[in-house]
Parts: sequence; structure tokens; C-alpha cells
Amino acid sequence: MPETIPEDSVGLVSPQTMQFDEPLEFACGRSIKSYQLVYETYGQLNANKSNAVLICHALSGHHHAAGYHSMDDKTPGWWETCIGPGKPIDTDKFFVVCPNNIGGCHGSTGPNTINPETGKYWGPDFPPLRARDWMEAQFRLGVRLGIDQWAAVIGGSLGGMQAMRWSLEFPDKIRYSVAIASTMSLTAQNIAFNEIARHAIQTDPDFHDGYYLEKGTIPKRGLVQARMLAHVTYLSDTLMGDRFGRVLRAGDFQRGQYNPIQFEVESYLRYQGEKFSTTFDANTYILITRILDYFDLAREYDHDAVSAFSHARCKFLVISFTTDWRFAPERSREIADALIAAGKDVTYAEIDAPQGHDAFLLPIDPYIRLFREYMQRIADEVNA
Amino acid sequence: MPETIPEDSVGLVSPQTMQFDEPLEFACGRSIKSYQLVYETYGQLNANKSNAVLICHALSGHHHAAGYHSMDDKTPGWWETCIGPGKPIDTDKFFVVCPNNIGGCHGSTGPNTINPETGKYWGPDFPPLRARDWMEAQFRLGVRLGIDQWAAVIGGSLGGMQAMRWSLEFPDKIRYSVAIASTMSLTAQNIAFNEIARHAIQTDPDFHDGYYLEKGTIPKRGLVQARMLAHVTYLSDTLMGDRFGRVLRAGDFQRGQYNPIQFEVESYLRYQGEKFSTTFDANTYILITRILDYFDLAREYDHDAVSAFSHARCKFLVISFTTDWRFAPERSREIADALIAAGKDVTYAEIDAPQGHDAFLLPIDPYIRLFREYMQRIADEVNA
Repeated sequence: MPETIPEDSVGLVSPQTMQFDEPLEFACGRSIKSYQLVYETYGQLNANKSNAVLICHALSGHHHAAGYHSMDDKTPGWWETCIGPGKPIDTDKFFVVCPNNIGGCHGSTGPNTINPETGKYWGPDFPPLRARDWMEAQFRLGVRLGIDQWAAVIGGSLGGMQAMRWSLEFPDKIRYSVAIASTMSLTAQNIAFNEIARHAIQTDPDFHDGYYLEKGTIPKRGLVQARMLAHVTYLSDTLMGDRFGRVLRAGDFQRGQYNPIQFEVESYLRYQGEKFSTTFDANTYILITRILDYFDLAREYDHDAVSAFSHARCKFLVISFTTDWRFAPERSREIADALIAAGKDVTYAEIDAPQGHDAFLLPIDPYIRLFREYMQRIADEVNA
Repeated sequence: MPETIPEDSVGLVSPQTMQFDEPLEFACGRSIKSYQLVYETYGQLNANKSNAVLICHALSGHHHAAGYHSMDDKTPGWWETCIGPGKPIDTDKFFVVCPNNIGGCHGSTGPNTINPETGKYWGPDFPPLRARDWMEAQFRLGVRLGIDQWAAVIGGSLGGMQAMRWSLEFPDKIRYSVAIASTMSLTAQNIAFNEIARHAIQTDPDFHDGYYLEKGTIPKRGLVQARMLAHVTYLSDTLMGDRFGRVLRAGDFQRGQYNPIQFEVESYLRYQGEKFSTTFDANTYILITRILDYFDLAREYDHDAVSAFSHARCKFLVISFTTDWRFAPERSREIADALIAAGKDVTYAEIDAPQGHDAFLLPIDPYIRLFREYMQRIADEVNA
């Protein structure tokens, strides 16, 4: 709970819900007749509606990107570091929109909501989505909010993948694309980690082939396992060493007796896993990791990223972090190289930071400074 | 099945069993009254018994390091690449001994054997071992075989950790220590991966707090999960990319229809996990990963590796592989640096290889050449 709301926070915010009663057809060929999106907005839309920014969340994210839901809230939104008055995504200058994606589990229509046609949870029968399905839903939300063109579509990790996909799906509807700690496609190692996480969930006896909500249970063990594993990939080896090292939480190494030993890092990961398992839906985890695995920006352009990006009309900011081993700097350099070869306006920065993939969420000075200055230029342009 | 045994293989071999009826006291303070070790030997002990080499196996290894058990054997021992006539560990020149460590699950006394005092499986009640307990058991095996001093103690990964520990536990009983793809202690990230693997096993409902054998079951899901995860850490990102990339085994990405997709890498990992789960004991997996986590070569020397190695009297060969991210080259450089500072004779080589941690098992030309030449020098010395 914040004693007082910090001055550079958007403060108390409330999620909103938008109901859509027109069908949405997905890339898989299936469609849903109606759906709803939960979203938050920060800042004010300007008179000519040119200052709207779309925030795309990553795997474990949601619509609550900044501010507090109440004075009892212990933590602010997930991107509080970057969204607020005077922050990179400056809410004094931008109208910021952050939806929970369709298929998510924080209020938008997804596996943990009721399918009105059956009266039961969607569960594993929710259509298998692709990233482009999110684009369509996000686009429609923008239309409803009176936004014809986004000043910028912005995201980190999977959010960055959406920001790039936007530049190809709706080239005229986006002025800037900001892809942070992102990639044009997952590597075999990335896919492997996702597959192991899914395996943990799917083999949990409480998973019940995905129909666990009907059974009144959740595959808690699997979710804990999935989150522990994912969490390791979000941190650098260096950061884990600095933060936990080989420090013990319990027991000791004394000879001649046996005191069960627990390392700090074990305790930390179990805590993270437990916390996640109470707030995230297992079917959504499977659905979104599949979206990650399937994502391949250049697939429909003969696997040629230059050809893909030649369809874009916006400008690009691409940022990576030196110790990110989930989506390594090399992945972002590939993006920047392809954009340059496609003749696009791209700013690329590789930030020297020890925090690994999660760096995009953290107050790292050179990152925040660069991000703020770039966004300031956009603000000047769209508010001119 | 080999049609014919290759000329550079030790050929058909048989495991042997050595029974020990003197008590073995462990570092934890507990002891067992009797135990047995399963082991294999290749080559002949020379007249002055100076050419014996001890092979220490890693987490998933065992006594069957080279050759074939029968003409129906599909695969040879796990270090066939390095052990045999004319190979680095040349069985024409060395008498090679490879035991399954105590606490293991391939025939030596361990959690999946019967505790004679209770008539039941040891299971989770097997004493929690440390690496030094293995040294003592290996030492006694050497004595029984008439070996007063090992020409070399050799191992990769956890095997290399044993080879180093030998140089401190029995400084007069070892002439050369060869530590390949190894480390003086695990990093927080290493521990995290082990913990996640243990968590998978321990939360499998079939684990029954470790008493699964009494219940007539095994925690198969947990073992599959543990192995899939470990396997990813044994391979480099590059190798996984080269071998699997984003190739599909099933399904396709066509729009407008939903064909469930499976990547090659998923299929491969599931196969590896399934195979492992039928051959490895879950309690042993927990026991050995704990040994890995606890291992800290310098702990009892004020955490000063130079001080630790000052007790050694042997010479050292240390080898690392550029893309090994489990025990990175930096870990081996720390070993080499400490040995140099301690005034020891050390040869250190960092092999440029794309295969990651598993490189120590593979026929990588510069690695094999260096290893062979180094071992040749030892052979000349001990057979002189």
C-alpha cells in the first residue's frame, strides 16, 4: 500500500470493459460471436486524437500497466517504471491504452470466462489464437475509442512482437513501433522452455485435459513449475549470482550432521511460482506460449524479414539488453538490420544492463533516458 | 546393435560387483554397515600397478563408460568417444576403472536398493551424500583392485568436480586430475535449474514422499519433466537452432484451419524425457543434484580456491567449451587461475565448439587431439 501516491504515478485507476457484439474471426478459421476486452487508459486523448499509444502486454502481463487500483494496492501496474507523468510514456502528453488481450485471463474473454453458447467455461476449447488475432481485437478497441491511428504501439518481449506485427497488419494505423527486448521469432531453445512449461501444466493430474475449472480445481503444481522455469529465463546468470549467489535460507554445511539445506534462490523461485499459480490461468498460459512459439514475423514473406518490413510505413525504436539470454541482443540486431535493409527509419540501442530479459521493466538509467527522449519526439510531433 | 565391434572399441564388457562389508561413514554423520559398488574395467593393470585411471561419471552417468554389453546393445558406453584402443584414454596403455557411484541407481548401493537392516528399499532414507563420500568409496575400490595411486582421475561436468576433489582428499593417491566442462561450485542459476527439476519430481503425486518403489510406482511425469529441462541446459542455443530450428514435426501454420502444431524440438525433448524416466531413479536424481548444489571446492578453505588447491600435489588438465552455458568457460578459467596462483602445473584449453555442455562427450577434433596428447604423456610417464 502506498502511503501516498507518488507524484510521477498516474495514481488511482480503474479498469474498464468494452463489449463487442460483432463476430471476431480468428486466423485458425474459427470465430466468436461476441467478446469483451478489459482495459485501462491513462492521460487524455487530445483534440485531434493523434496522441494515443497502445501498450501491448507480454506473457504474464495484463491491462493494469500503471497506477494503483486502490490505496490498499501493494504494488502498482506492471510498467509503472515507464508510464506516468514525466516518464518515457508520458501521461501528460499521451493517451495510453492498455487492454488485456483476448485469450488472456484478467477479465477479457478467454479460456477462464464463460462461453455464452454453452454456459460453460471456454477452457481448452477456446480457439487457438495467433498474435494477429490480438491485432484485430486491439484495432477494434482503438476504433471504439475514436482512435484512427496510434501515435505508437509499444511493448516489451511478446509486447514488442505485437508492436512489430502491428506495423505489418495495419501499416497506416501506426506512426511508431517500439519493440523492446523482443524477437522476430523464437529460437529452438525458447520453444523448448515453453514446451517444458506446458508439459508441466498438462501432466498435472489436476489439469483434467484443460477442464479443471469445471472440476473446481486448478493445476497448481504445473503452474508453479512453469513459472519457476520461466522466471529463470527472465533473469541473467549474473543477476541471479548477485542477488542470491549460494546464500542459504535454511540448514548449513557442517560435517557430521544433516541439516536440510535450502538455498535462497530455491525459496525465491518457489515463492514466485506459488504467487503466479494463484493469479494466472493454465489454459491461457498454454494459449499464449503457443502464440509465442508460432510467431514468425517473416513467415508469410518467404521468411525474408526485409521483405516483411518493406510493408511497414511507421518508424521504429528497437531496444535490447546485453545480458538478456531469452531474447538476446542478437535477435534485436536482426530486427534493426532488416529494418535498415528495408529502408526504414530505425533507432536501435543495446543497453548495457546486468538484469537480463526483465530489464525492460526496470528503472535502468540509460534505457529510461533514451526511451523518454524518443517518446518526447513523438509527443512533440503528434501534439504539434 | 553393432554389426561388428569397431576396432577402436574396448568391445564386449561385463560389469562387476564389489561387496564391501566394512562400514562407510558419510560426511552427514550417518554410516552404512555394508554396501556394494558396480564397476567396469577396461585394459590391463601393469606390473607396477601405476597405469590405473579412475573415471568419475556425471549426473546421469554410470559404470558403463565404454564398449558393449552384448552384440544386441544398440549403443556403447557413455564415453565411448574417449575410452578405447588409441583413444584419449587409451585402453592399450591404461587400466581404466569406472564405478557407478554409491547413491547411484545402476547397481551400486543407493536409494533403489534394499536396506538389509529393514528389508525395504532405502528410498528417501538413503543418507544425503556429499561428493567426498564418493571419494572414500572410490578410494576403497582402488585399494581392493590393488591400486595405491591413480595415474589420473578423470571426469566431465560433475565427474570433473570429483576429479578436482580427489586432488584435495587424497593428494598422494593421484598423479593427474582431469576436469572437463566443470566448475568449483554451481551458480545460482545452476542451482535454480536443479531445484526446478527436484520440484517437478517431488510434486508428482506418484512420488509419495520418495516411497514410490514400495507403492509399486515411479514419479514418471516428474522425471520426464526434470530430464527435459536438464537436457536443454546441456545443449547450446546454437546447437539447438542448427539441429531443430523451428522445424515442425506435425501440423502446419496454414491460415483458416487449425492443425495442432508440434515442433521437432518438443518431440525430441519428450522422447529424451520418456527414455530417461524408465532408466533413472527419482531419489537418486534428487540425491545427486543435491550433491551438485552443495559442492563448493573452496568452502573449507575460507572460500579461497588458491588456498584449497595449495593442498594438491598432482598435475591438472582443465578443458572447457566456448558455448557451454551450464558450466561456462569462465568457471574453468577460475579453476585454471586458482591452480596457477597456487603454483600448480596446469594445462588449460578452451575448445571452440558449438555443442554446449555435452561437448565433453562428443568427437570434437581439437578436443580429442589435445586430450589424447596429454594422456599420452601420462601413459609414457607411468608405463616408463
